[in-house]
Amino acid sequence: MRLSISHKTYSSWSLRPWLLMKQLGIAFEEHMVLFGDEPAWQAYRQQVPSGKVPALHTPEGLVWDSMGITEYLAERFEGVWPDAPAARAWARCAAAEMHSGFGTLRTQCSMNTLRTFEMKAIDAALQKDLDRLQALWGEGLQRFGGPFLAGDRFTAVDAFFAPVAFRLKAYQLPVQPEVQAYAERLLALPAVQEWVQAARSEPTDPPHEEACTGWANPVSP
Amino acid sequence: MRLSISHKTYSSWSLRPWLLMKQLGIAFEEHMVLFGDEPAWQAYRQQVPSGKVPALHTPEGLVWDSMGITEYLAERFEGVWPDAPAARAWARCAAAEMHSGFGTLRTQCSMNTLRTFEMKAIDAALQKDLDRLQALWGEGLQRFGGPFLAGDRFTAVDAFFAPVAFRLKAYQLPVQPEVQAYAERLLALPAVQEWVQAARSEPTDPPHEEACTGWANPVSP
Repeated sequence: MRLSISHKTYSSWSLRPWLLMKQLGIAFEEHMVLFGDEPAWQAYRQQVPSGKVPALHTPEGLVWDSMGITEYLAERFEGVWPDAPAARAWARCAAAEMHSGFGTLRTQCSMNTLRTFEMKAIDAALQKDLDRLQALWGEGLQRFGGPFLAGDRFTAVDAFFAPVAFRLKAYQLPVQPEVQAYAERLLALPAVQEWVQAARSEPTDPPHEEACTGWANPVSP
Repeated sequence: MRLSISHKTYSSWSLRPWLLMKQLGIAFEEHMVLFGDEPAWQAYRQQVPSGKVPALHTPEGLVWDSMGITEYLAERFEGVWPDAPAARAWARCAAAEMHSGFGTLRTQCSMNTLRTFEMKAIDAALQKDLDRLQALWGEGLQRFGGPFLAGDRFTAVDAFFAPVAFRLKAYQLPVQPEVQAYAERLLALPAVQEWVQAARSEPTDPPHEEACTGWANPVSP
């Protein structure tokens, strides 16, 4: 299988299936389509009609969208979702809520895995997303006992929230200690560190850098 | 099981699992939470921390988010997704793309199952969503032979796009004949007609009416 992704500095959607497959030891070939490389995107759109990353090229054809990829993998590999039905249902709901929601957090705190920023302000809409995030993570960690969101091992719901862990760190967002601790556990995973290390050798993409500073001032580098 | 939903005139998220369960003959009790009824929403948020509809109250606990509900049902009932693996993978990807995408179509053409409008303009962002919609529906109908998106019977991917069928009709959006015909097939389903009939007896919600006329002029009633 071949997984098409984009910049490891900015592409939060790419991170999810990449991290899931790395964590579960599912073999894949990586195909990088850099933002701004218009010929590469033209070729990509010929293969992937949605025109978006990620996409998984499989023996059964093209599988696109991070949730579509996750369920495709769940049918073929062990461990994608929790084994217990109640934990599995919860994990799918939490991942699906991330998939369609948290719009303000995603817009105002565009993922950047390398730099740190300081929010100019935390408005009511962003605080609402942060409140919901903390309630959701808190619920999962308490109900299933941690250290991962739906129990004692990494599953797809952790992969779906990994970009949020980067956002919390990059924008120094204020969250409860147990939420902060979970985010730090995610960021400490070897596969996540591998992702960050690879990001360091990528070219910078000006539109994405600009998106990061719309609501925040750069602190580093 | 009890399914919490909101206005059948406006709540596109509610329509998806409601229609899926009706079409598949999955029994459920309906729980309506009307927009604007603040005491009802306060009570609802005590039960459903996301604070959003739809939510399915099940023997295994709360299952929220239309995609989370769909996968919960898929584990317990026949026919939620197509049987053939390739069709199932495609259907999940298309539904997931709807779940996270088509933002301009959703914002500019807020669902209204009762009234019709005329767009003030179709801007580039809306046209892009319409182009992608037509490519996606066209692909499914051609590849799997119709009359539904992923083959010869109604599955969850049709439920996910049912709100779009209402949007095409309400805002008289220009689409290819086969796309138009598929939308009309969806709207002609008895369960969809039942949904519309129930919408007629609901009170109007001013903010949602206003959302419908942000980018469009009312034509009827």
